[in-house]
Amino acid sequence: MRVLVSLWFILICLPASAEPLLVDKQHFTLESFTTFSGQTIKNVQVGWESYGKLNDDKNNVILVTHYFSGNSHAAGKYHPDDEEPGYWDAIIGPGKAIDTNKYYVLSVDTLVNLNVHHPKVITTGPATINPDTGKPYGLDFPVVTIRDFVNVQKALLDSLGIAKLHAVIGPSMGSLQALDWATAYPERVERMISVIGMGETDAWSMNRLEHWANPIRLDPNWNNGDYYAKVPPKEGLHDALTLITQDALHPQFINAMLPQHFPIEESPLAHINNKHSSVKAFEALSAKRVNTADANHLLYLVKASQLFVAGFDKPLEQAMQTVQAKALFLPAANDLILPPYLANEAHQALLNAGKSSDYEELSGDMGHLNGIRYVQQAGERIASFLAEPVNH
Amino acid sequence: MRVLVSLWFILICLPASAEPLLVDKQHFTLESFTTFSGQTIKNVQVGWESYGKLNDDKNNVILVTHYFSGNSHAAGKYHPDDEEPGYWDAIIGPGKAIDTNKYYVLSVDTLVNLNVHHPKVITTGPATINPDTGKPYGLDFPVVTIRDFVNVQKALLDSLGIAKLHAVIGPSMGSLQALDWATAYPERVERMISVIGMGETDAWSMNRLEHWANPIRLDPNWNNGDYYAKVPPKEGLHDALTLITQDALHPQFINAMLPQHFPIEESPLAHINNKHSSVKAFEALSAKRVNTADANHLLYLVKASQLFVAGFDKPLEQAMQTVQAKALFLPAANDLILPPYLANEAHQALLNAGKSSDYEELSGDMGHLNGIRYVQQAGERIASFLAEPVNH
Repeated sequence: MRVLVSLWFILICLPASAEPLLVDKQHFTLESFTTFSGQTIKNVQVGWESYGKLNDDKNNVILVTHYFSGNSHAAGKYHPDDEEPGYWDAIIGPGKAIDTNKYYVLSVDTLVNLNVHHPKVITTGPATINPDTGKPYGLDFPVVTIRDFVNVQKALLDSLGIAKLHAVIGPSMGSLQALDWATAYPERVERMISVIGMGETDAWSMNRLEHWANPIRLDPNWNNGDYYAKVPPKEGLHDALTLITQDALHPQFINAMLPQHFPIEESPLAHINNKHSSVKAFEALSAKRVNTADANHLLYLVKASQLFVAGFDKPLEQAMQTVQAKALFLPAANDLILPPYLANEAHQALLNAGKSSDYEELSGDMGHLNGIRYVQQAGERIASFLAEPVNH
Repeated sequence: MRVLVSLWFILICLPASAEPLLVDKQHFTLESFTTFSGQTIKNVQVGWESYGKLNDDKNNVILVTHYFSGNSHAAGKYHPDDEEPGYWDAIIGPGKAIDTNKYYVLSVDTLVNLNVHHPKVITTGPATINPDTGKPYGLDFPVVTIRDFVNVQKALLDSLGIAKLHAVIGPSMGSLQALDWATAYPERVERMISVIGMGETDAWSMNRLEHWANPIRLDPNWNNGDYYAKVPPKEGLHDALTLITQDALHPQFINAMLPQHFPIEESPLAHINNKHSSVKAFEALSAKRVNTADANHLLYLVKASQLFVAGFDKPLEQAMQTVQAKALFLPAANDLILPPYLANEAHQALLNAGKSSDYEELSGDMGHLNGIRYVQQAGERIASFLAEPVNH
């Protein structure tokens, strides 16, 4: 059970460290935002955090982009008595790999953030009140893309007078944003680090993502996205979160964490509806997460991930030709949801285009989550990559 | 599209060969059957097929046990104009690896067979009429186990006067039956071949299987299993079959089969409910299978697989000590649903118990389905294993 509690922390927030930074969630508003698909969203609100200090030249900025179920709480604590700091606290802070004594580190909640009901998440999506109707958007919210997440971040940086990024780095869905930054705004990005990432969805990953959406659509309470004044589709959301959690982990970790199979349990033998204790323990992890997550937001994040190809307007091989940043790819060797071949395709496309790109696989028993929980193994590599000079 | 049609054949039936055997589905009835959990089922009916001839000593019998979504149609055709022969026709037939000039090969439809509505499947399960009520059992049908599948096969063999198996061989869920045969009835099994198999479910595979059941339970038409006089839960069943198909395949195969991602499609950009063509093409494969499958039967197959540990009454390491058969394990190297470590655990447990066991990994781009579609690569290995003498 202790292991289960520990996974719970891993999934929600993260690794312990001594005396973390104290941080505040900040608030950014855009009166009007035009999406990649040409739709207008009024009054866009997102939360953001920063660690370290912006220098006078405003050229010490590192943007950290978050993963599918994450938010901008990448490091530090809100209060000294918080149980856990931000998810990448192991590598972000004074004297750490992303050294806040040198760098001004910024992180932004994405649009359609999964945990819209978490008190520390500020986002705009289908659960948001549509100012034109006074009711939640539901499925009237436009489809958004990874490029839209990037463009909201760019608007925030513009408002702060930041023209250039020393680096952009992110894990998983954050890596999609990082690579799209380097492709969409090549003159603004000096270094790009993709952790457990990819350059574009392929047919396999696109279909894999679809399974994450299906349980929500099956739940009768989903009601085609119109449930905000009614009972939300908690069962569908729960099953989706459980599947996502399993996809993000490796058998080795799950088997170390959960009750073993033998002896055969009487209860599931006695009736088809009775579940094994191993299944109940695993599902309990998602039960806690259902309360802060929103089912429609999950559908929009799935769609944003499915639509992804870095650069968006040309095939990956061509898009990589526009990149000016030095690149580093850090996939996890035993990742079962974004297997290393996906990062390697983008890495090879950069090399084929004559760009500077490095590639190294992370180890650990967690599969995909090695890139969150065990990222510290790459701390020195990240620090030296950030210190390398680039051509200006 | 040709590739898609081809996958459809692969999933349902299988590999082409010249002049296959002509076979009939036969019918076996048990007036009463007592399950592993102690429940009684009246009037059990299952289908079976045989290839080759039983010799006078009745000692040339090879039992072939089928996979999760399969049935006893392992080889041959019912009619010369059938589009495809049985799923392992590549290795079962005259002069083939499992040579029907030498062996009498038997295969039996399992209880709770998935495709109960297929005209060539004969099975007993929740969709069967309960003779006590005159209505389908639904969830009143008792939970059944891999041992129950084995015991129905044993009853058929007993009725034919067959005391001993030259070998038992099966892929995937069929491998569970094969290993349980060797453990439950060691004196009756001379050789055991596990293809893409395992010795017991672990916490990871048990939870993976649960995701196959979840979409059915979410579908409001499932109605706690009571839908036979109403609208069946086709959407939940469809989503379950789609997930199973993806789990059974490797990204390399899926990416070769399905439409590529780029250019970005207008339709999924335009509305959250619009699907990518790649997703629609993949889901179309399941749409065809929904009509012959039954949602409750799928739940019972999931449960039978989750409850599996070879031998059932002791830990795997101890159970392997009872085995007398020579063993051969043929997992697929890139299997994502029963990764090779699962077969290797059983193989190592046999070696630790001082038993004869061999292990070799299958190759191919299909992942788990390498053990169905590309089993011919192991043909010589299987033939020589079947020809090896055993201690009597």
